[in-house]
Amino acid sequence: MDFKRILEEKSKESWEIYLPNLSIDCVVFGFHDATLKVLILKMKDNVLWGLPGGYILKDEAINDAAIRILKERTGADDIYLQQFRVFGNLNRSEGFFKDFSDDLWHKQRFVSIGYYALVDFSKVTPKVDFLSTNCEWRSIEDLPELMMDHRFIFDKALITLRKQLVHKPIGYNLLPEKFTMPELQKLYEKILGKKLNRGNFYRKMLRYDILNKLDETRKGGAHKAPDLYSFNLKKYQEALKNGLNEIW
Amino acid sequence: MDFKRILEEKSKESWEIYLPNLSIDCVVFGFHDATLKVLILKMKDNVLWGLPGGYILKDEAINDAAIRILKERTGADDIYLQQFRVFGNLNRSEGFFKDFSDDLWHKQRFVSIGYYALVDFSKVTPKVDFLSTNCEWRSIEDLPELMMDHRFIFDKALITLRKQLVHKPIGYNLLPEKFTMPELQKLYEKILGKKLNRGNFYRKMLRYDILNKLDETRKGGAHKAPDLYSFNLKKYQEALKNGLNEIW
Repeated sequence: MDFKRILEEKSKESWEIYLPNLSIDCVVFGFHDATLKVLILKMKDNVLWGLPGGYILKDEAINDAAIRILKERTGADDIYLQQFRVFGNLNRSEGFFKDFSDDLWHKQRFVSIGYYALVDFSKVTPKVDFLSTNCEWRSIEDLPELMMDHRFIFDKALITLRKQLVHKPIGYNLLPEKFTMPELQKLYEKILGKKLNRGNFYRKMLRYDILNKLDETRKGGAHKAPDLYSFNLKKYQEALKNGLNEIW
Repeated sequence: MDFKRILEEKSKESWEIYLPNLSIDCVVFGFHDATLKVLILKMKDNVLWGLPGGYILKDEAINDAAIRILKERTGADDIYLQQFRVFGNLNRSEGFFKDFSDDLWHKQRFVSIGYYALVDFSKVTPKVDFLSTNCEWRSIEDLPELMMDHRFIFDKALITLRKQLVHKPIGYNLLPEKFTMPELQKLYEKILGKKLNRGNFYRKMLRYDILNKLDETRKGGAHKAPDLYSFNLKKYQEALKNGLNEIW
């Protein structure tokens, strides 16, 4: 069945069960191989990629909708999710469906609530839905062209992540349970978009007193096996309340 | 005309011109007499106060809607406005209108986009609209009970302000053009909800290098006339890009 027929079949049901004019778009971040990645998908019959998204059931809280949408797409429960901005300009997506009839669900104006999600890369299995042919992780440094205003949405999500590094447990949600200091530094560098001095980073992190040094090292590398750390979640949460590096 | 009749008359037109299920609620902050204040209003026939809000025209961007709603309520142009969170739980407001017929515009489910606004207190003239009897400034430390989830919305706005002190020109938008260092400190204290050490505050502020010391003093007090300052907007904006007190 082609893209157009699928959309038209889904349209009628959508008018019945979803809140009109409202959508959710998700920017799903994962960290793997020293690379910050984002989950994108390709719709049938389309050359452009897009962010995973969906709609809000008439009797569903918006946060529950975001959890459901992400569960459908990633198979993951317990995902760290934050709404970060509403995208409510005119003509965000209407033109995308200009060749369809005016009563098509997807052709209406959508105000979209942007959520970002932080996931443990190893626990996610990207899934295509009935509208898509691909659902893949891509490095944020190597994103293809995205449809509609999805590049703008992605950019805003990344900026939000950058600003919230001091307030939200972003490292905790993106890293596996055990990690090395170079891995933590790499994550910070990818989010902040710049190189950091190794000695300064190390000292600052230790001064925050939010890490547990484990009695283990990372085996298998060519160099001296680096120490492994985990977050001390209680101290981490406490430190975030005041903001890391923000003592007035 | 009573509250119920007014609502019913407005209802029909509202279905025609506004996006359904979507509203905007505004938390308008002003600073005056060493007090952080917020604009609240009282609807006709109601004992509870609420935040000023409104709806989005079908062909209106959401930010334009927020500007229009605030202009109607405060008479002010050029207001510093930021969306900060969407309030999308079930039964936020539906119960408030339970005695009305089901086709009343106001009785539908609303997902509300929260905006905070920072205004120069001296430039705002609060105005009642057709639904209200009062529109007043109140100290954030002395707020009456608010209707629906408006207290929650206010709390989230204040928390946002607190976190954004390092990233947004919050002082610039709340203070008059010329201010004293004790006034700036008082504003920070009110937003952060705690006392700050005078010497530390003074040193940090000077270290940021975002203030111009003026060749004027504040006349009229009983004590030595304090120096007046203004923001160096260019340096301020530059410093905010990296975040005040957030040098990695």
